[in-house]
Amino acid sequence: MPDSPPALVADIGGTNSRFVLADGMRLRPDTLRRYANADHTGIEPLLRHYMADVGMGAVSAVCVAMAGQIRGDTAAMTNRDWHIDRMTLRQITGADSALFLNDLQAQGYALGHLAPDSQHLLLPGAPPPVGASQLVVGIGTGFNVAPVHFVGPRHVVASESGHITLPVRDPETLRLAQALADDTGFAEVESVLSGPGLVALHRYLGHAGPALSPADITAALAAGDPRAEAAMRHFVRLLAMVMGDQALIHLPFGGIFLIGGVARAVAPWLARFDFATHFRDKGRFSPFLQNFTVSLITDDYAALLGGAHFLELSLGTDTV
Amino acid sequence: MPDSPPALVADIGGTNSRFVLADGMRLRPDTLRRYANADHTGIEPLLRHYMADVGMGAVSAVCVAMAGQIRGDTAAMTNRDWHIDRMTLRQITGADSALFLNDLQAQGYALGHLAPDSQHLLLPGAPPPVGASQLVVGIGTGFNVAPVHFVGPRHVVASESGHITLPVRDPETLRLAQALADDTGFAEVESVLSGPGLVALHRYLGHAGPALSPADITAALAAGDPRAEAAMRHFVRLLAMVMGDQALIHLPFGGIFLIGGVARAVAPWLARFDFATHFRDKGRFSPFLQNFTVSLITDDYAALLGGAHFLELSLGTDTV
Repeated sequence: MPDSPPALVADIGGTNSRFVLADGMRLRPDTLRRYANADHTGIEPLLRHYMADVGMGAVSAVCVAMAGQIRGDTAAMTNRDWHIDRMTLRQITGADSALFLNDLQAQGYALGHLAPDSQHLLLPGAPPPVGASQLVVGIGTGFNVAPVHFVGPRHVVASESGHITLPVRDPETLRLAQALADDTGFAEVESVLSGPGLVALHRYLGHAGPALSPADITAALAAGDPRAEAAMRHFVRLLAMVMGDQALIHLPFGGIFLIGGVARAVAPWLARFDFATHFRDKGRFSPFLQNFTVSLITDDYAALLGGAHFLELSLGTDTV
Repeated sequence: MPDSPPALVADIGGTNSRFVLADGMRLRPDTLRRYANADHTGIEPLLRHYMADVGMGAVSAVCVAMAGQIRGDTAAMTNRDWHIDRMTLRQITGADSALFLNDLQAQGYALGHLAPDSQHLLLPGAPPPVGASQLVVGIGTGFNVAPVHFVGPRHVVASESGHITLPVRDPETLRLAQALADDTGFAEVESVLSGPGLVALHRYLGHAGPALSPADITAALAAGDPRAEAAMRHFVRLLAMVMGDQALIHLPFGGIFLIGGVARAVAPWLARFDFATHFRDKGRFSPFLQNFTVSLITDDYAALLGGAHFLELSLGTDTV
């Protein structure tokens, strides 16, 4: 391994992109880089920039995890007009093998390989059975999930769960959903449960003047601002409803893991706004919801480790 | 194979239960039986009745597919107070190996092994990529789904998707959801999208007198009854919304397959009530929904074939 060139792992997020060189699952700390997407014009320039930055001419393999859709040989971002195909990826990096994942799948491949101090139990539950499925829930620039199943040896499933119907159970939430709907009249989960969603919710609840960032909103909440409090109350209740639905859909008896910048900002407020009560508010299935634990992952580079793991699993059996 | 005793496969549905003896994936036609659950007092008596009915003392292996939850060594029905554990199952049948599945997982294991004339394309879409995931959607006494992933060699995932929040996007549907909610105030998908749900919907829309069965409601609809028409309009729209959400959650580029008695009754009415339009009504993701085909499976014994396939896959690698 030390004699062969490293692999390149990239995590193209909605706002920032992260890169590293990896020998198997060992990430080279001095090659970790984080770039703001706003400073670059596409994935190809970003990759070229990184290769020059770390002085690499060619790598052995490359895995790109991206906040977007993978279809065949092409990966395209959802919230930005960026895309790349497998052939270009190989040409830029000199790699023989090029793999795509979405960013939540990469997080799923990282589970179980993270430092214990980057994992925080938010909601206890039944002890997980051996081999039980897990679920990653990402809240950042967008919203998405990835179910993790322990078959052959691990299968992390792609999803577009940020784009399903926002759950509504009362007239107040219906008005909110209709106000935050896109121009086709559709309110998706991501319309609320994302950074831009939290900002839109805060504005809907009466905030005038320049839009605050999610970090500004949590700061205002800590300072006692009633509009920020109302926004977080709605956010936590809707997050709990969506996560309860996703728990019933995927049955992650091995735990639910929150990741992403907005998840980290919201996590300290879950208890105050009764997350557990709303998470388990599913009629006759309410007691069943006690089977599911919720944890927060705070490792900002988890997706890179997951990408390295996916390369190892994939290239060990089936070179692309 | 002809010299070794057959396996027993059972499909314990919400209303009826089906049994067969199988040599590998070959079902013995003369041993197919269907019993109404209402005529029996539990799974154990049903199994004893069947063993006596076909004159079997012992089988080589047994697989029970059930409309309910499998947790560890116990399977429990959702809509009936019936349960059974693995040890009892082995004792009754004399089998060395006993496996559980939920009924939708069994349907997932049957896909690709059904007679072509039992599969009907309802909604065309993009041609399926090789190895693409599929999704089974069951509508009968209850509602549920099973995603089918082609890893190692096939993994069908359990779900409880009938118990997630009923989608609501307008005041009329909100009133309907609140009227059909259970006594905790929760309206789940199954509150509408099931046989009992269709009956409750018909009553909510003004039907007085004795409740009609789902078959009576479709007959009334064919005869021009306006309440039956309104009930089916709501049913089809909500089914399309739920199926569109499930398509975004599971990304079944290999197709969506409707099964179950209520699915068969409703299928002829999908086009009239604009199923395709509602299925694809997802804002900016609407064009994306054109990737998903919808088919109807009409093989009443598909779950038995799926159970036989699951036994073959499981016992070939890992005897329980």
